[in-house]
Formats: sequence, C-alpha cells, structure tokens
Amino acid sequence: MREIQTISFIGIGLINSSLVRDLKGRSFYKSSIAYSRTNKTRKILKKLKIVDKVVDNYESAVNQADLIVIGVPVAAFSNVIKKISPHLKKDAIVTDVGSVKKSLIRIAEKVLPDKIDFIPGHPIAGTEKSGPQSGFKGLFKNGYCILTPSSKIKKESLRVVIKMWNLVGMKVDTMEADYHDMVLAITSHIPHIIAYSIVGTVSNLEKSIKKEVIKYAASGFKDFTRIAASDPVMWRDILLLNKKSILNMLSIFKKDLAKLEQAIKEEDSKFLYNLFSKTRLIRKRINT
Amino acid sequence: MREIQTISFIGIGLINSSLVRDLKGRSFYKSSIAYSRTNKTRKILKKLKIVDKVVDNYESAVNQADLIVIGVPVAAFSNVIKKISPHLKKDAIVTDVGSVKKSLIRIAEKVLPDKIDFIPGHPIAGTEKSGPQSGFKGLFKNGYCILTPSSKIKKESLRVVIKMWNLVGMKVDTMEADYHDMVLAITSHIPHIIAYSIVGTVSNLEKSIKKEVIKYAASGFKDFTRIAASDPVMWRDILLLNKKSILNMLSIFKKDLAKLEQAIKEEDSKFLYNLFSKTRLIRKRINT
Repeated sequence: MREIQTISFIGIGLINSSLVRDLKGRSFYKSSIAYSRTNKTRKILKKLKIVDKVVDNYESAVNQADLIVIGVPVAAFSNVIKKISPHLKKDAIVTDVGSVKKSLIRIAEKVLPDKIDFIPGHPIAGTEKSGPQSGFKGLFKNGYCILTPSSKIKKESLRVVIKMWNLVGMKVDTMEADYHDMVLAITSHIPHIIAYSIVGTVSNLEKSIKKEVIKYAASGFKDFTRIAASDPVMWRDILLLNKKSILNMLSIFKKDLAKLEQAIKEEDSKFLYNLFSKTRLIRKRINT
Repeated sequence: MREIQTISFIGIGLINSSLVRDLKGRSFYKSSIAYSRTNKTRKILKKLKIVDKVVDNYESAVNQADLIVIGVPVAAFSNVIKKISPHLKKDAIVTDVGSVKKSLIRIAEKVLPDKIDFIPGHPIAGTEKSGPQSGFKGLFKNGYCILTPSSKIKKESLRVVIKMWNLVGMKVDTMEADYHDMVLAITSHIPHIIAYSIVGTVSNLEKSIKKEVIKYAASGFKDFTRIAASDPVMWRDILLLNKKSILNMLSIFKKDLAKLEQAIKEEDSKFLYNLFSKTRLIRKRINT
C-alpha cells in the first residue's frame, strides 16, 4: 500500500478533530499538518499538540501533503477546493467528510486537476455539538463510513482512505453518490427537518402555552429539541445542498402523514394499530 | 389531612407498579391492595411483595379502599370505572394516571356516584417500555404530575392525591383538562405521531433501501425509532381519545412544515438560518 508521508487536515471541527485524535500514534503517516481559518482554533490546536504543524494558509497546508482530509462545513467546500487546487502535489489524494456527496463531487470535478484522486467520504458519526473542543477519541468506533468514489480513481488511493477509516474503528462501504444522498435524506436530513419544524411550531406559540410546553416537555418533544439544537449553519447548508433528495422524500413523508391524520379523523383503530406495530419491528433491527 | 387506611391499585403497568414500589414504606397508607386482570401479573405481584394483598375481582379490590389509583390503559378506563363504581365506599377518592384527561372525565362523570371525588391525574413520566416488569423506584423523581379536578371536589381529597405524588418526588400542578390535553398533544402526542409516520414511511420502502436506512441509521432517525417503538395499543388509544387537540395541533404543524419545505425549494437560506437558530434557544430552556 502507498505510504503516506504527510497528511493534512483542512478545517478542524468535530469530525476532523476527532479523526486527528484517533489517528495520532497509529503509524498511518509520518507527519501531520492542520489548517484552520481562525487564529482561535489554531491556538487551541497548538495547545492540544495533536498535529505536528499548524498553518494559516492553504499553500503550506497542502504543498507537501500526500493525503488531504477536508473537514469544513459543506458550504465552504467549494472555496477550499478552489484554494488548495493550485498547490496540490501531483499525486495527492483528496478526501472529505461532508454529509452530502453529489453536489460536492460536481464542484470537485470542475476544479481539481485530472490526475488528483478525489475520494468523497462521509463518516456517519457526530453529536449535536460542533467545533474542535467537541472532538474526542472513539467517536467513529463501530460506525460506518460511506465512500462514493468515481470509477476513474486509482484503486490504491481508495485503499489508503479505507485504511484510514478502518484504523479509527469504522466499517467502510462504497456506493453511488446519488444513492448516498437519498439514504441520508431519510436517516438524517428529513428527521432534522421535522424536528426543526415542530420545535419551530412551539417557538411560535403564545408565551403562556410555550412556557407549559417547555415545562412539561416529555419524551418525544424533548428528543426533538435535542435534534433541533444542531448547528444552524451546518444544517441550512446540508439541506440546500441535498435539496433534490430531500424534497423527494419529504413529499412521500407528507403523504404518509396525511394518511395517518385521516385514520385518526375516522378513528380507524385497525390502521393505527397496524402502523404502530410495524414501526416497532424496525426498532428491533437497529443497533442501539 | 385525611388518613388513608387502604389504598387500591387497579392495573399494574409501568406507572402503577413504579408508584407502588415508591410508596411502600413511606407511611402513606396502612394497607395496600392491587388488582390485575391477568393471572400472570397477579403471580408476578405476589412474588414482588410490594402490596399486602393481590386480588382478582373489582369488588374486593375497592370495597375497603379509601383511595383508588386507576392505572389501566386509557381505553380500559371506561370498563374499570363501571365495574368498580357499585362497590366503592361512600367517601372513596378515585384518581387515575391516564395521558388524556377530558374524555376520561366525561366517562367518570356519567358513571361515578355524586359523592365520590374523582381527581384525574397524569404523572408525566414513563419510558417506551410497558408492563409491571418495567416499573422501578425513582421513575417519578423531579417530574411533574398534572391534576385536572373539577371545582366540586373536596379540597381534602385533592390534598391527599397531591401528597401521594409529592411523596414519590413529583411536583404537582392543577389545570383545566382541555388545557392539559392541548399541552400534551404538543409535547407528546404529535411527536409520537410524527415518529410513527416517518418510521412507517421507511417500513414501506423497498427492501434494499430499507436495509441501508436501518444500517446507517444516524442520530435523527434512530431517535425516531425509539419513540415509534412505544406500545401500539396504548398509543392507538391515546390518539383516539385526544383526537380533537391532536388534529388541531397537527394542522398547525403541517402548515409550518409546508413553509419550511417552500424555503428549501426556494433556497431561502435566511429563513432556514433564522428558524434553526430559534429552535436552538428552546433547547436551552428545557431541563435535560
């Protein structure tokens, strides 16, 4: 397998800062560089001593790097890829950790030189927290990382990225970017939209009843508020960048909700019982 | 305060079995009786030794009781209240733990003798589990119990029920039954409907994609599956018995979801950012 002399992390949020912590000391690379846009994060990084070098410009971040892991908000991906592109080593491997894939691939294909292997990645892991302070060792353990590479890339490059995620405890699957975006719309994006929407509904209620709802928040609403406390900028951008799959799935969900509403109206207890029994079975198949 | 010689628990599910465990040894009553419909539960109860007497008929369950706590599924409330009514001591206090209030009050008012004080109650506590095996000490600690008594009942009877919930660690509020039903529609019933609906949507997907959704279930969908694993019979009945408030709130929610959908369609990033920031604030006000 190709040896990685230098690895470079562009952006040090929850995901990349956890990845850095987990890779350190595992002999996956000889030296590591991290780039952060802000002085504050660079200072934190220097204190943490989890990378060998902290830099403040894209050129020195990537011009020596064999493997570049882009871990910036999805909306910033386009700018980053344009900025690093002229400075990449000619055989550099570029990967990322964004929650949407198709729209990022379109950007990368336009910008990156042909010889550069771009391996789009999405480690399915995270908390509702963000920023380098929130990262921790073990975040990825037993999770799945989905890669959506084109058929044109070198097998060897793919193996390097798979090895990296395996080292931090992830199982790796590859699939088409479109399929990834649809699956994630269902497992993650739509649930966030719904949680944001219902917590938003409560936030619009008049003051007195809002007070009671917050006071008596039971299982159900409380879980929704946790989801709806996720980073607003990150989620705005994810929704906009996976618009097509999300709108498709949302229209199916709305039809199903209308059926359930109708069943309540008509007191169709058989429909309700059947649906609620079916959903219980799904839970049993999920690793919790 | 009026002394309770004998307390009787009708139905021993998650709530009543936790209440029994928590009240035992606190000198709130002299003796305790529990009624269960099934032989299986009666056997479990005898083994657990948390009540003094286990009975298999309504008459001996209530004819000595000063305080009766009805802890049966909401759909069984009507039958229970009819069956115990002829055997109640003339100054018995009857309370319950159902998640809906207005519809149960209507039934109780029709059936119970005038002199009996009925104090509708709803301890906001629970897990997605059900049955006497799932009960545990401390379930109610620091939670709220809502009582929705009519103005006609004796103050003394109300004080007894308040004392009972205080003893197991609950703060007690009283309010109108209609208001309770609306607040709970928002905090609990609508979130359940939505979770059931979206997990139902997934359950209808074709086999291959359903497999992926389950495999990659991330924060969001995973939380929804936990909610949608709640007892199907209980939730069917709650939804039917709180139909009016639920349909009202559901129509507001649907309008808000349509607005959010429109904002995604039009890529109105300002709308999205504002909504997602507002919902984050609600989380901060909730006791977690």
